[in-house]
Amino acid sequence: MNNNPQLNRNGQLQHLLTTEGLPVAIFLNILDKAESFIDTSKHEVKKIPLLRGKSIFNLFFEPSTRTRTTFEIAAKHLSADLFNLNIAASSQSKGETLLDTVDNLVAMHADMFVVRHSQSGAAHLIASHVDKNIHIINAGDGSHAHPTQALLDMFTIRHYKHDFHDLRVAIIGDILHSRVARSQIHALSTLGVPEIRVIAPKTLLPSKIERLGVHVYHDMAQGVKDVDVLIMLRLQNERMQRASLPSTGEYFKYYGLTQKKLYLAQPDAIVMHPGPMNRGVEIESAVADGKQSVILPQVSFGIAVRMAVMSILAGV
Amino acid sequence: MNNNPQLNRNGQLQHLLTTEGLPVAIFLNILDKAESFIDTSKHEVKKIPLLRGKSIFNLFFEPSTRTRTTFEIAAKHLSADLFNLNIAASSQSKGETLLDTVDNLVAMHADMFVVRHSQSGAAHLIASHVDKNIHIINAGDGSHAHPTQALLDMFTIRHYKHDFHDLRVAIIGDILHSRVARSQIHALSTLGVPEIRVIAPKTLLPSKIERLGVHVYHDMAQGVKDVDVLIMLRLQNERMQRASLPSTGEYFKYYGLTQKKLYLAQPDAIVMHPGPMNRGVEIESAVADGKQSVILPQVSFGIAVRMAVMSILAGV
Amino acid sequence: MNNNPQLNRNGQLQHLLTTEGLPVAIFLNILDKAESFIDTSKHEVKKIPLLRGKSIFNLFFEPSTRTRTTFEIAAKHLSADLFNLNIAASSQSKGETLLDTVDNLVAMHADMFVVRHSQSGAAHLIASHVDKNIHIINAGDGSHAHPTQALLDMFTIRHYKHDFHDLRVAIIGDILHSRVARSQIHALSTLGVPEIRVIAPKTLLPSKIERLGVHVYHDMAQGVKDVDVLIMLRLQNERMQRASLPSTGEYFKYYGLTQKKLYLAQPDAIVMHPGPMNRGVEIESAVADGKQSVILPQVSFGIAVRMAVMSILAGV
Repeated sequence: MNNNPQLNRNGQLQHLLTTEGLPVAIFLNILDKAESFIDTSKHEVKKIPLLRGKSIFNLFFEPSTRTRTTFEIAAKHLSADLFNLNIAASSQSKGETLLDTVDNLVAMHADMFVVRHSQSGAAHLIASHVDKNIHIINAGDGSHAHPTQALLDMFTIRHYKHDFHDLRVAIIGDILHSRVARSQIHALSTLGVPEIRVIAPKTLLPSKIERLGVHVYHDMAQGVKDVDVLIMLRLQNERMQRASLPSTGEYFKYYGLTQKKLYLAQPDAIVMHPGPMNRGVEIESAVADGKQSVILPQVSFGIAVRMAVMSILAGV
Repeated sequence: MNNNPQLNRNGQLQHLLTTEGLPVAIFLNILDKAESFIDTSKHEVKKIPLLRGKSIFNLFFEPSTRTRTTFEIAAKHLSADLFNLNIAASSQSKGETLLDTVDNLVAMHADMFVVRHSQSGAAHLIASHVDKNIHIINAGDGSHAHPTQALLDMFTIRHYKHDFHDLRVAIIGDILHSRVARSQIHALSTLGVPEIRVIAPKTLLPSKIERLGVHVYHDMAQGVKDVDVLIMLRLQNERMQRASLPSTGEYFKYYGLTQKKLYLAQPDAIVMHPGPMNRGVEIESAVADGKQSVILPQVSFGIAVRMAVMSILAGV
Repeated sequence: MNNNPQLNRNGQLQHLLTTEGLPVAIFLNILDKAESFIDTSKHEVKKIPLLRGKSIFNLFFEPSTRTRTTFEIAAKHLSADLFNLNIAASSQSKGETLLDTVDNLVAMHADMFVVRHSQSGAAHLIASHVDKNIHIINAGDGSHAHPTQALLDMFTIRHYKHDFHDLRVAIIGDILHSRVARSQIHALSTLGVPEIRVIAPKTLLPSKIERLGVHVYHDMAQGVKDVDVLIMLRLQNERMQRASLPSTGEYFKYYGLTQKKLYLAQPDAIVMHPGPMNRGVEIESAVADGKQSVILPQVSFGIAVRMAVMSILAGV
């Protein structure tokens, strides 16, 4: 009945690999669970012994201090044992070897893997290989998916906007290379956002992006007009060159978010960014630090959302 | 009465440095203790608070993700505090400096060190230097010894074969550079295995290996005939060149374990490998993943065996 | 009334950034608290749950295994969750980015940061930026300050000499580049040491060092005469060249501490060194390992002192 590799036979979350095809009930379950981890009186995430005795492995084939740390914090808040394995891509030349590495860690009593890999599909490959008592979280695979980032973004939008069914959301920047953008679009669609816009130069847009149900804008003034949510993406320097962008200054002029452009959105629009920011490239400091920015709350919510995913996968 | 540097005056295990000269009673004590850590109903290692408050230092002068992680997992299963110190060999030019490093960590209240070093004898040097309340585990020194690997191999053999006194065991591959092989041979001898064979090209055998009481084979078909246990060794690429092996393909042809060669052994023979495997070099995938392979159980038993060593050293 | 950035409005320690201007009552409070963490019967630091649930981040922009580990041990002895972030200086080009990194970690529920940075003032910058529920410990900023090292040195001096008001203390070596020396001089002054000497070649002394109230010696025999405490500093090779020192042998001849030179000090003088030592460069092995050396006790006291700083900052 259900051939979604993320769900078990009872329709429960078995792995978190992508937001594509994730049922709306699972989305809401994760967001509600994350809510329960936030101490509303202190706006802090509580420490709880839900995963005591569980072993979670951060299996990072791409370097990442930031994302790796968020999972480490989430795991320790749940009282799990967390093991960091930073595996240089060089030691991993074949998919077969990747699976041998995973098999060995499973034999060392891993309960859950958080996987980041430069190749799209790596987390899926692992998920299709392991026994059903092992759970995989995709922490970013190539330019494919980054579902926990999208989930924390959805948490943030719900927190400030309360409902998804009445929103205009714009995603702005390097859509082409962004696993974050892809995961956000699927999540926003599933949660019922009626109008999703992507704003980017043609060189930073995937072909046929319209098929995902989004509206394409190349002009930022038109694209941000009346939106409720602006999601800025990070522009990576090496990608700017390939995209034939003359300079970061030029990029900022056309696609950087300034206070002036922000005035075109709804007065209560929120500004989001998955971090780390390039101030003066994709966003003006006045906006990043302004009162419409929810960039730091996103980070806090990210801990609660990752705790929620981990505890739902563990069945507790 | 006892001048074994691994034992204290009462004949108890003070350090684990090598399987050479380790009394059979100590071997059996470690194997039995490891057995007690395995939850037989669930085939899982249990988490217990035996070493709560103890500080264990992973002191790795050679890079190793895999072995380091097994000790980290064992320590955390015992509820110890584990500290990882990956010390580049470059910062360590003199034995004196090595001992200064150790003295400093002892002053920081280390209770136990797990030491890996490219120089044979490094763990012995440290053991001879520290006070008697500090315990050293050799996690591999040069091409000398790797006793916890040999112990987990003995655990695996006993688990599947129940008794050592009736076995033919073959160790196959790069015996010359292998600290694992050396530690295995001493362990098998002490535990009473009547027939230990080593199978390798002449260029990968130490001179006078027969003195250890092993039977030497250069032909694999003859060597594996009727054996009960096959222990494959990893072939490292850089060593293959020095050994004048023309190619990995050539090596596989003569010394790689195939299903066909495996048929020459006892029908219930088990296949072991210390990992990580080079599939298609020293072992065929069909064998590695076959029903006679106990390579992944070895890894699981390795956690229990390292927990046993740590808790016996700590006297708990 | 109080504009010391380290103190809150009630005069309590808010951050530990430098020993300069730190009130004597705070010094004594830290030393007394550290004393309470030492189990005098066993000369061991006890493990206590004072900071359970707190998140402490080791934020090291300069590589350091040794100092980072002391803070990790101290945090774990207090049952805090500790997260290691080793951030290559290359990824940090602007102060603004440094603060974005800090803001993100605060959003991840950091309670305390231990900061090491190659730029003087980095810890101050962070301290002036964060909310008052966040605490900063400077673990070394450029050639400016290293207050926990100075505090453990003061603990060591008080432990062996009982009182500061009657002492002659000599600091010997590369004063110019030493954040340790600077922090020691401020601490010794505040605690009432009547005679502080610095002994170094002119090329390794800051200009106008006398303004700090110290007596300058270029001749070691004169400088160490009748002192009660000798604090040796590490000579870094790359700095030796800039200082126009012909060789380490030459340096040792004039400024290395030998048993012979030590005879010129008080018979019960103690010898200290912040580590790691260059044996045969700034100190003779016979002295480093001799009975007047308190170099290893310094390391042990360092754990207790860092526990004291952490728990005082956390208000527990």
